[in-house]
Amino acid sequence: MNPKRWLRSGFLVFASMAAVAALAGGAPPEKPRARDLGVPFDGIPGPNNAITDVAGVTVGHTTLISGSGKLRLGHGPVRTGVTAVLPRGQGSLSNPVFAGWFAQNGNGEMTGTAWVDESGFLEGPVMITNTHSVGVVRDAVIQWRVARGGADSTGFYWSLPVVAETWDGWLNDINGFHVKTEHAVHALDTARAGAVEEGSVGGGTGMICNGYKGGIGSASRRLDPRDGGYTVGVLVQCNYGTRDNLRIAGVPVGREIPAPEPYVLLPWGPTEHGSIIVVVATDAPLLAHQLKRVARRVTLGLGRNGSISGNDSGDIFIAFSTANSGAAAAGPVMDLKMLPNDSLDPVFRATVEATEEAIVNAMVAAEDMTGIDDHRVIAIPHEALRAVLRKYGRLAR
Amino acid sequence: MNPKRWLRSGFLVFASMAAVAALAGGAPPEKPRARDLGVPFDGIPGPNNAITDVAGVTVGHTTLISGSGKLRLGHGPVRTGVTAVLPRGQGSLSNPVFAGWFAQNGNGEMTGTAWVDESGFLEGPVMITNTHSVGVVRDAVIQWRVARGGADSTGFYWSLPVVAETWDGWLNDINGFHVKTEHAVHALDTARAGAVEEGSVGGGTGMICNGYKGGIGSASRRLDPRDGGYTVGVLVQCNYGTRDNLRIAGVPVGREIPAPEPYVLLPWGPTEHGSIIVVVATDAPLLAHQLKRVARRVTLGLGRNGSISGNDSGDIFIAFSTANSGAAAAGPVMDLKMLPNDSLDPVFRATVEATEEAIVNAMVAAEDMTGIDDHRVIAIPHEALRAVLRKYGRLAR
Amino acid sequence: MNPKRWLRSGFLVFASMAAVAALAGGAPPEKPRARDLGVPFDGIPGPNNAITDVAGVTVGHTTLISGSGKLRLGHGPVRTGVTAVLPRGQGSLSNPVFAGWFAQNGNGEMTGTAWVDESGFLEGPVMITNTHSVGVVRDAVIQWRVARGGADSTGFYWSLPVVAETWDGWLNDINGFHVKTEHAVHALDTARAGAVEEGSVGGGTGMICNGYKGGIGSASRRLDPRDGGYTVGVLVQCNYGTRDNLRIAGVPVGREIPAPEPYVLLPWGPTEHGSIIVVVATDAPLLAHQLKRVARRVTLGLGRNGSISGNDSGDIFIAFSTANSGAAAAGPVMDLKMLPNDSLDPVFRATVEATEEAIVNAMVAAEDMTGIDDHRVIAIPHEALRAVLRKYGRLAR
Amino acid sequence: MNPKRWLRSGFLVFASMAAVAALAGGAPPEKPRARDLGVPFDGIPGPNNAITDVAGVTVGHTTLISGSGKLRLGHGPVRTGVTAVLPRGQGSLSNPVFAGWFAQNGNGEMTGTAWVDESGFLEGPVMITNTHSVGVVRDAVIQWRVARGGADSTGFYWSLPVVAETWDGWLNDINGFHVKTEHAVHALDTARAGAVEEGSVGGGTGMICNGYKGGIGSASRRLDPRDGGYTVGVLVQCNYGTRDNLRIAGVPVGREIPAPEPYVLLPWGPTEHGSIIVVVATDAPLLAHQLKRVARRVTLGLGRNGSISGNDSGDIFIAFSTANSGAAAAGPVMDLKMLPNDSLDPVFRATVEATEEAIVNAMVAAEDMTGIDDHRVIAIPHEALRAVLRKYGRLAR
Repeated sequence: MNPKRWLRSGFLVFASMAAVAALAGGAPPEKPRARDLGVPFDGIPGPNNAITDVAGVTVGHTTLISGSGKLRLGHGPVRTGVTAVLPRGQGSLSNPVFAGWFAQNGNGEMTGTAWVDESGFLEGPVMITNTHSVGVVRDAVIQWRVARGGADSTGFYWSLPVVAETWDGWLNDINGFHVKTEHAVHALDTARAGAVEEGSVGGGTGMICNGYKGGIGSASRRLDPRDGGYTVGVLVQCNYGTRDNLRIAGVPVGREIPAPEPYVLLPWGPTEHGSIIVVVATDAPLLAHQLKRVARRVTLGLGRNGSISGNDSGDIFIAFSTANSGAAAAGPVMDLKMLPNDSLDPVFRATVEATEEAIVNAMVAAEDMTGIDDHRVIAIPHEALRAVLRKYGRLAR
Repeated sequence: MNPKRWLRSGFLVFASMAAVAALAGGAPPEKPRARDLGVPFDGIPGPNNAITDVAGVTVGHTTLISGSGKLRLGHGPVRTGVTAVLPRGQGSLSNPVFAGWFAQNGNGEMTGTAWVDESGFLEGPVMITNTHSVGVVRDAVIQWRVARGGADSTGFYWSLPVVAETWDGWLNDINGFHVKTEHAVHALDTARAGAVEEGSVGGGTGMICNGYKGGIGSASRRLDPRDGGYTVGVLVQCNYGTRDNLRIAGVPVGREIPAPEPYVLLPWGPTEHGSIIVVVATDAPLLAHQLKRVARRVTLGLGRNGSISGNDSGDIFIAFSTANSGAAAAGPVMDLKMLPNDSLDPVFRATVEATEEAIVNAMVAAEDMTGIDDHRVIAIPHEALRAVLRKYGRLAR
Repeated sequence: MNPKRWLRSGFLVFASMAAVAALAGGAPPEKPRARDLGVPFDGIPGPNNAITDVAGVTVGHTTLISGSGKLRLGHGPVRTGVTAVLPRGQGSLSNPVFAGWFAQNGNGEMTGTAWVDESGFLEGPVMITNTHSVGVVRDAVIQWRVARGGADSTGFYWSLPVVAETWDGWLNDINGFHVKTEHAVHALDTARAGAVEEGSVGGGTGMICNGYKGGIGSASRRLDPRDGGYTVGVLVQCNYGTRDNLRIAGVPVGREIPAPEPYVLLPWGPTEHGSIIVVVATDAPLLAHQLKRVARRVTLGLGRNGSISGNDSGDIFIAFSTANSGAAAAGPVMDLKMLPNDSLDPVFRATVEATEEAIVNAMVAAEDMTGIDDHRVIAIPHEALRAVLRKYGRLAR
Repeated sequence: MNPKRWLRSGFLVFASMAAVAALAGGAPPEKPRARDLGVPFDGIPGPNNAITDVAGVTVGHTTLISGSGKLRLGHGPVRTGVTAVLPRGQGSLSNPVFAGWFAQNGNGEMTGTAWVDESGFLEGPVMITNTHSVGVVRDAVIQWRVARGGADSTGFYWSLPVVAETWDGWLNDINGFHVKTEHAVHALDTARAGAVEEGSVGGGTGMICNGYKGGIGSASRRLDPRDGGYTVGVLVQCNYGTRDNLRIAGVPVGREIPAPEPYVLLPWGPTEHGSIIVVVATDAPLLAHQLKRVARRVTLGLGRNGSISGNDSGDIFIAFSTANSGAAAAGPVMDLKMLPNDSLDPVFRATVEATEEAIVNAMVAAEDMTGIDDHRVIAIPHEALRAVLRKYGRLAR
């Protein structure tokens, strides 16, 4: 590995594994995804099986990994980052999307939601980072906008960025505040379409999911042409749950896999902690109140995987539609398209299915990680997962 | 007066004072409205200064008044009724309107709101009656729809009618359950455009507002052509408040008017009790989430008149837009119009102003009433009101 | 069978199968429940594995079954009823419970929720019936209260009953409005502790769940003594879902069971329709805002069973706590107990698990039913269900 | 004036006018408040007529004023700051208070509200700053907590600080991001009980209210002993409204005062813009859901002063109770006190009245200010205000 040092932050910053691999002169390592392992899912994914299958959506990661051993506050070890989801790519700032959000359990932060509720619009990117870096990332989005000349014609405007978080303090020096403005800007500037890097990258770098290493995951569904042929894409930053509750494809995987090493020994025991942030994108022409409905379906995907949405879990979801481009532009009256409520079920189903899969993708992509004070979190062992699915007649093919 | 007895309910039912007067061979008595008395208000009303200024909206009342003296449960005296607001007149059932609602204080009932929130649509009329007759009126709306053949093409459908209430048990034998299916149907069948009868009529018959006789009131605002020239209309069923808190045109009227007879002696003292239901209509092309915003502005109109939204007050508001006719029809994708958020302020202002005025109209139109156990509630005395406004330099003209 | 005719309604009214059996001189037929069939569930149920395991909670059913063959509006066939859940049995009216509610999808009605939100209390029973009988049942609760002298010491009060519904129009003459005041009163008067009758009884009589016959189901969980030893009980009126989506114990049962007869041929195809009402009771000392959190966990139980919460599904949940008896009584300041947020996870888990089980209990207890126009809905075949669970290694024991 | 330069920020930082005056060797200038000018208000204030009349509540300001003339991005002129409200003074971090919040119009930010909703608690201070500095202040609160050793016994915790904002970009170089971590910390460290400095201080430094100079204002009400003798205190950061809509004591002051110089010429005209953040404190023992009710009453106070809650206005309110100290501590079950719902009206009334007065106090305390590009905003002229009140018979005494 030949990582590129970036800026003067002193951290190793991986724009993406692909970029890292390119620097190293090779192709990125082929990582299997949940389907590759034989985990069965319903529905037909898009070409990338990722949120970027919704045309226009781009995703960028800044991954910060440095140091090892004993925690020294402010010095590391560092296992954190920032992920940016841009609804309309670099055109997101000047062309808001209809959006809705929902907190299944609000032990978490998603800034900017009062305005999403009020206006019905998401005006800019959705950023995800660690719990104690929400502020710096939030202001960074404004700085990024100012630097790009995003002000309105009068020279005045204000921004209410949407920034969410999950807590990585078991692996990361979270109170060292290692995420800086430039890291948020980097995630925004390098966001791109195509395959989404998953696992311990971006905001998901130091996350733990269902007792295994977690992080970023994504999935998508392509609707039947008779249902409009729309795409629904999901991206999760997955940091919730316990092994005991974990179900994959309906199988109680967390209880069945022989623990190759002790469960992560959180000081407060194997409770449902952590959080999950879910971003749902679609090109179906949904209005704000319909997107709130979509956001509320994410819970059902979590339910399939066994979540109880514990007290400590910030389970916060946002959904947006890339249709109705220009709806927030100036003008006396805007022309819009709306998918009728009676046609929403395929979108709902796709949301549930893609959420279920994105979570498993996050776990499958993650790799073992050792962080502060040598805390170690193992990834879900692929072969053991396959063995359990086989035992229960649920291994695909 | 030569009232028409209606059906076999045994009650005197006044379809409207105009109808009563017509039966009696004369013109309806000209009742002054708040502006006629010199109460100053901001903004420009429509021709009727009523919710019916929004094209298509119709209003019907069934007024039930019978008996006097001692309360005999189930026998009266009866002072109650039903008011129906139809967003698109008799075409309301098959052509839902975008809508939003808000409870400033939920000590009250408005059925059907879960579906308004979820779908963004109001599918049928808004009915208002007394607290203990919400059920019969709710099912009556379904019976009315069934009788009119409202089912969909498959023969199946369900209805989730919107029915609200305020409590008239100080004047009315509310636990006698005198409102019957036919009374709700009558209000629906006789709803019409034009001037809205105000005061102690329909659902407002037995209501008390700010310590004086209350009931139904209405008002409207016509927006400037530069703001789209839209109309905003408000109808209230007014049963909240105390004399002590009452402000009209900013003047503490309730404290200043010499009480010509003791305040209404509610057993629990002059607390903020009762409730207010407010219906806001507009032809501005607003979506569901925007109409929720409009509904939330009603509180500001109540604030102008001095309300504190007491614990016992069911302050529940619903707003709908008659634009986007056909938006709920079948079809793969619907075409809509939307007024941009940046253009909403004139609608908000009109909502606040029309609410403020509709409440005063309800009080000015009401007349003294004696109900069960000879409970007596006086109307606000017009000349005393004028005198107080004059004293504070607020009498118009 | 020797059913008891009740009142003069002309319908067969079964207070309960137990009562029917008693009249017939025998014991009630022993119906297996989901666990008896070998469906595996997590957690430890209470003695009845029902909502009545929460001390004080009683449940009553009125079941209306009469007629067969061609639908004649107003004449039947009738397949409907009313179910009453009383938080503190017959003492419920004078001793409200803290409560919270949530609409996962609001295509349905639950009256009284504005006051639940505002006050934090549920004041009386939760009633469940068919969609078009909500009104009559709502007013019936008030009549019941009036008849029992429930007014406050001043002789004045108002009631805002909580009444919910699901739609039984595929089997029942729903537009015949066969539920009457006395049927609601009967459910209230006959409510009792102990085992809860499940399946096609009470409000659940004509319901369809996941493409099979549905209705009422219940389950409970007893918390570990270290978690306070509290009980969580759930009752569902189950009318949602499709066979295609159905998962039981994580197994895609709906797809695997060979259809012994065609799926129920709803005119609109096998979409997610219908609804589910869920009542959660606990004796854990939870405040209103905590009970709202509990209500929101019901969605996760639905998720485990495969729901996508379709557009047509009224998925509305209410949770209450029987602790803090007397909290709504008169007094300057009330003393309360509160379970800390940090101790809620076992309650959340119990809610998810009991919801999952109550739904399967409803399906397992239901029997084939033929209704209007000879529409026929089969119950889930028990042996086929066992066979599928066995195939996937999920049959218990 | 002998301002103290603080830290190395290069800005003039006024901890408070009192502090400044002390440095200058004199007493703080006596500024009249609204009551001193003869503005009539209802209700009995506490000794400071400020939020600090609620025992334990402290308030701190950091005021940043530097530079003049032409705007140079990042260089100034600077007219901004931070205000901190600590519910239990320096003990706030370890002893959360019950809280509820409400957005009358969500064109603004208040971070941390998902957890306030979910937990029912406010865990730490409420911070108010300018729109583009919410992030830095948010993370600063965490840094402050970390520095003070606020972690739990395991060494782990996370914080979800509550930080709100209004927009000062007409006077301040808002995109220069002049608020730094140390400014937030300074407001926290210097927060104190007693009189609250009002006007152009702290977060309110560059604010504009109803077309005049705005900023911070406060007021309080002492309840009658028969109502429990509780105190309700309000603090506003006032930046909303238009002169045209402004009513003071019911008088249309904004239209009546002869403009001594042109209205502030915002490029988008005299629309309702800006925002208002309102913090309500009480020692009445209210639970979370009751405090949400209190927060919703703030709107009625705004209504009295003529607000229409325009599209651009972030009108966001939070209410907390200092009663039930220790309610969030560890323990199996907590003992709480609750004021019954039936006793809430005096709290509601106090909230409305104190909001109404705090806004006028903010305007009365503010002084003319010139900011970026020589934008000038005048304070409401005291003598003209008195003259208008006298004209309308509303000047007190």
